[in-house]
Amino acid sequence: MENEKKIRVAITHGDTNGVGYELILKAFEDASMLELCTPIIYGSPQVADIHAKALDMDVHFNVINDARKASDNRLNLLNCFDGEDIPVELGQATPESGQAALTALDRALDDYKQGLFDVLVTAPVNRSTTKGFHGHAEYIAHKLGVNGKTISLLAGEELRVALVTNNLAIKDIAESLTRQKIVEKGALLHEALRRDLRISSPRIAVLSLNPRCGEDGALGDEEKEIITPAISELEEQGIQAFGPYAADGFFGRADYYDFDAVLAMYHDQGMAPFKTLAAEEGVRLTSGLSLVRTAPAGGVSFSLAGRGQTDPCAMHHAIYLAIDVFRNRINYDEPLKNPLPKLYHEKRDESEKVRFRSAPNKEPNKGEEAAER
Amino acid sequence: MENEKKIRVAITHGDTNGVGYELILKAFEDASMLELCTPIIYGSPQVADIHAKALDMDVHFNVINDARKASDNRLNLLNCFDGEDIPVELGQATPESGQAALTALDRALDDYKQGLFDVLVTAPVNRSTTKGFHGHAEYIAHKLGVNGKTISLLAGEELRVALVTNNLAIKDIAESLTRQKIVEKGALLHEALRRDLRISSPRIAVLSLNPRCGEDGALGDEEKEIITPAISELEEQGIQAFGPYAADGFFGRADYYDFDAVLAMYHDQGMAPFKTLAAEEGVRLTSGLSLVRTAPAGGVSFSLAGRGQTDPCAMHHAIYLAIDVFRNRINYDEPLKNPLPKLYHEKRDESEKVRFRSAPNKEPNKGEEAAER
Repeated sequence: MENEKKIRVAITHGDTNGVGYELILKAFEDASMLELCTPIIYGSPQVADIHAKALDMDVHFNVINDARKASDNRLNLLNCFDGEDIPVELGQATPESGQAALTALDRALDDYKQGLFDVLVTAPVNRSTTKGFHGHAEYIAHKLGVNGKTISLLAGEELRVALVTNNLAIKDIAESLTRQKIVEKGALLHEALRRDLRISSPRIAVLSLNPRCGEDGALGDEEKEIITPAISELEEQGIQAFGPYAADGFFGRADYYDFDAVLAMYHDQGMAPFKTLAAEEGVRLTSGLSLVRTAPAGGVSFSLAGRGQTDPCAMHHAIYLAIDVFRNRINYDEPLKNPLPKLYHEKRDESEKVRFRSAPNKEPNKGEEAAER
Repeated sequence: MENEKKIRVAITHGDTNGVGYELILKAFEDASMLELCTPIIYGSPQVADIHAKALDMDVHFNVINDARKASDNRLNLLNCFDGEDIPVELGQATPESGQAALTALDRALDDYKQGLFDVLVTAPVNRSTTKGFHGHAEYIAHKLGVNGKTISLLAGEELRVALVTNNLAIKDIAESLTRQKIVEKGALLHEALRRDLRISSPRIAVLSLNPRCGEDGALGDEEKEIITPAISELEEQGIQAFGPYAADGFFGRADYYDFDAVLAMYHDQGMAPFKTLAAEEGVRLTSGLSLVRTAPAGGVSFSLAGRGQTDPCAMHHAIYLAIDVFRNRINYDEPLKNPLPKLYHEKRDESEKVRFRSAPNKEPNKGEEAAER
């Protein structure tokens, strides 16, 4: 391990009026972080200084203009704003602070294409200050020219959650939900758990769309028509998917301890329980891109900017996770490159058998916990 | 207090193949419960014995056929099944077990009309075994011939939740949500908090319907068109309602500590986070009826029936809450009956002023926590 080149972690500063710099600066107050990785903050020395002063922190940056010049054991700050002044109004959502976030992100993605760092950790960006920005995953995929599908995995201490639909009004959810979408997201989630997190035989819990799993059709037929067939299709692909489970009973009984991830049908169904449990510690992983990207699950929190009240825990976890995923992918891909044919096939066969056949057939719970009023 | 007549608590046995008897029997293992109230279990001695045996519990009932014969300091069991044999199949959802639940409930409601007990605590009933049963609240209101509106309040240690819509498929929620419904439920919730729980100046948090509060219309316009106007209307009625708040950020920041109750727009939005937090301890209170009715928030849990793994905590809380609400209503209503006119009006005026004018104007959070992806 000591001989390994340190992993280069690019960290974009996010909205310059939010808590991005606080998360970053506090995360690297812990000196051991520099033993773990070589950070390159994509940002502005001027803005970083303003935040450091507001937080009464004494920070020494290694200011660089080229990621190639990043030094190990230093807090490298790559200046993305040559000579340009960024107006900083702590706690205000302004077009300038949003634009500053995107400028740094663009520079980071250009550098990634040139192979100048290994993984990307993003500080929060707010949609209200960045017109046309619909989230990092979409933005990054677009900039990298990737057409493949991505999935966002929310990871906390106790559970992992991914969503089938996102960015939808409640009125549009049911219509937008298809068997194909559930299968696609389930397969992406399975792959993320296996390759990114090295869970060899992941178990996925699929939630129902409607309360009490639709109550045999009385509260919606999507469970019968869409979700259950999707689960069967995932099973046919050798993916251990179970359910559908009524969300309230599932979270109430803490059934998530029995699974490696939960696939929720829409935003609040997955995110509200996830944040209830993970609070400040959650991390977001975008999977499906060549680039490993993680982020603290929280937002820009304008109201907290410059106050020193933000816990850097999620930023620590985001950095750890990015490094883990980077290494995991190398380990996962390595034996697939040059397998010893026979040995490989035998091993593979055996593991596939285990995966496909010995899955404990947990009975889908029809939400009986919730069936009483 | 010692001179007071003990409060008579009717407890219906619920689905006879579920965990109802276990909840009841375990709750009264604690001898101090009999000092608190006089219980009357509406059930069957035969079925109670089967459960007691399965649980290896030695229980002494005072079997009666008339609620008037209930004794203080005894565990009274009112036989609702004269000579009738109920087939017990622990853990099985059968029409017989569902019917047995309703028979006991009907008897209890008949007795309530004759004033034979003070409050009702219901053990869980499952909808799949009781055709036409859409929950206790609706059933009880119908049997008591009440046309008034009721509200179900879920109460846990850390938060209280009520729902604007319920028993709806996801696809029907948005269409069914109206300003009037939110105002009606908000007012009922306010009244329940004041009269039933004696919170003099309750603060209610209203959740948004859509993720990120609809993101300025991009994810739905119900926040602007329906929810915000409803909150204003509640404020005009002197009710401290705040919001709308995006659900994930609200629960993630534990903002529920700042409020006396949360008004969620639909089932999973409120129930999934509630159960995530309250787990086994939650209690349901039906407010808006003359009868005080509470229940453990959990379900019949067929899979756990007869196994002795059920925690009676929620049943304890349900009994405590029913007693509290009964006393609270008496205390609340008493001064309104024969007020000393002048004193009364002055006090009332002052309290209303406090409520209407000095409410801290907490800014609705537009869900910025969730605005980053």
